[in-house]
Amino acid sequence: MGGDRDAETVLAGVTIALAHRPDTSFLLFGDSEEITPLLEKFPTLKAVSEVHHCDVAIDMDMKPSQALRHGRKTSSMWQAIDAVNTGKADGAVSAGNTGALMAMSKVILKTLNGIERPAIAAIWPTMKGETVLLDMGATIGGSAEQYFQFAVMGDAYARIIFGLESPRICLLNIGVEEMKGTDSVKQAAELLTASSLNFCGYVEGDGIFQGGVDVVVTDGFTGNVALKTAEGVAKMMSAYLKQVLRSSVFARIGYLFARGGIGALRERMNPDNANGGMFLGLNGVVVKSHGGASPEGIASAVELAIEVAANKMSDKIAVELDEMEEELLASQE
Amino acid sequence: MGGDRDAETVLAGVTIALAHRPDTSFLLFGDSEEITPLLEKFPTLKAVSEVHHCDVAIDMDMKPSQALRHGRKTSSMWQAIDAVNTGKADGAVSAGNTGALMAMSKVILKTLNGIERPAIAAIWPTMKGETVLLDMGATIGGSAEQYFQFAVMGDAYARIIFGLESPRICLLNIGVEEMKGTDSVKQAAELLTASSLNFCGYVEGDGIFQGGVDVVVTDGFTGNVALKTAEGVAKMMSAYLKQVLRSSVFARIGYLFARGGIGALRERMNPDNANGGMFLGLNGVVVKSHGGASPEGIASAVELAIEVAANKMSDKIAVELDEMEEELLASQE
Repeated sequence: MGGDRDAETVLAGVTIALAHRPDTSFLLFGDSEEITPLLEKFPTLKAVSEVHHCDVAIDMDMKPSQALRHGRKTSSMWQAIDAVNTGKADGAVSAGNTGALMAMSKVILKTLNGIERPAIAAIWPTMKGETVLLDMGATIGGSAEQYFQFAVMGDAYARIIFGLESPRICLLNIGVEEMKGTDSVKQAAELLTASSLNFCGYVEGDGIFQGGVDVVVTDGFTGNVALKTAEGVAKMMSAYLKQVLRSSVFARIGYLFARGGIGALRERMNPDNANGGMFLGLNGVVVKSHGGASPEGIASAVELAIEVAANKMSDKIAVELDEMEEELLASQE
Repeated sequence: MGGDRDAETVLAGVTIALAHRPDTSFLLFGDSEEITPLLEKFPTLKAVSEVHHCDVAIDMDMKPSQALRHGRKTSSMWQAIDAVNTGKADGAVSAGNTGALMAMSKVILKTLNGIERPAIAAIWPTMKGETVLLDMGATIGGSAEQYFQFAVMGDAYARIIFGLESPRICLLNIGVEEMKGTDSVKQAAELLTASSLNFCGYVEGDGIFQGGVDVVVTDGFTGNVALKTAEGVAKMMSAYLKQVLRSSVFARIGYLFARGGIGALRERMNPDNANGGMFLGLNGVVVKSHGGASPEGIASAVELAIEVAANKMSDKIAVELDEMEEELLASQE
């Protein structure tokens, strides 16, 4: 139970998730001296939880290699992922150090058969709804084959969380013309065109927000820059809005009348509403929650893990990947 | 005189720029049958302009290679750049096809001695002012040496437009720790640390907007994705804001009172205010204006070209690059 927020925020979030999914039970890994007394405040959660005491916690600023050395077997992060591996849990959620969580997940759960590198998928708001973007930072740089695998994983994920039969998949690029982009992106477009996935070509950074695309595929470097840039712009605009709405008596009066609507805007842009970086390509469900998430944010990350585990996503990805690769081989013969 | 807007918008913009910089004269390349009668509406501009008729225009969706074949010598874009090359003009501004403009600029003006690849620099708003970002799409992928050259060019540009003695330069990365990022980014950080530039380490996508950095260096793929993503978020938030401010009678009343402030927000986020993609690394000044820019946007692109030409930026970059490379060689001996 790490992250920038305290354990109480996490417990409050899990309690909200439990209210939405009452058939769930929880294993809580962390400092039992902190968690056990706090649980008294959340009787519904207490009734379905087991606290597993861990002496070791992974710091937010620890490097993945350090975390693996320091937290192997003993840390709460390791033990939570290990519970997924041994089948004691159906999924793990952490608000802790992303790099450490990915490194431990790879060591403990291993990647699915045939998957070269895992990916982190995020859910972004658009003008028309939501879209899945991957990879958000697990894999720096990518081969055409990796982009293709990301597309297969994103497809499976979008089918589950959006309930779509055939999600529209695009590659993120710097132009919509065929000639643009890196060689791997162009080769990936050829692979995807030849596949039975619903590949819709390239999308540019601004096109993501117009909606109409269900899955946007990119490598972890570009994806992470795009994610952070989007967060930065949203934060800056919110700050400006606050500032201008306080800048004069008239603006303040206006704010009093409009605050319902402005609250709705904040709600819409609130990363907590789509909180949860889904780790794709592993033998098991692991979700990364925003370190500074509110209880609602924690709840949405937990519910995402429940949903994906209930739908056996890892199995589906493995099967789909096999089928796709056979299909590609057949088309190349 | 291309772009998504009509010739009148462009002329209106140039007239604004002329009002701010009355010691300027203009060569206007395009369809004289369209431009000459329109000029009657702008007497101050007409007095200092020469219209050069061109039969050929470059379409917005033409590929660079097509544009070079189709528009060599004859097109308005070619002739405007060529006027810089022959010394008839101090700088060229176009609202046309970016890829074609860069391709022609490279062919006609050539890159500065020692510069491997040119870059496009944009000016972004931040919480504390503005920052220069490059490359916005001229060079896909980059070696450590190219990142280093981008930093030198960004440094020269920021010194001129921000009037800074020693601009703070960062590399865009997906974490602020030393271990993160691609190999070229990490090697570029070593080169920059060893140089006399004011290198301040890595910045993440969200960090750009916090201000405190004057120049952010990245490759054209990542830079273009970041730029378009930022534009997409800003557009989506503006659309939401408009929607929520019309969503109820109270919100509408609120809007009436707050509209001054909200107008200020739009103004702040308006890309026209920092319009102008500066082409860096060429033997001459070329500025790309947004295709859909308003007259104010065109004006700021034109004024940017005037400012940079007046400061002989290309010469400064060439000198600085020489010095830096000597310095690097000396430090490696």
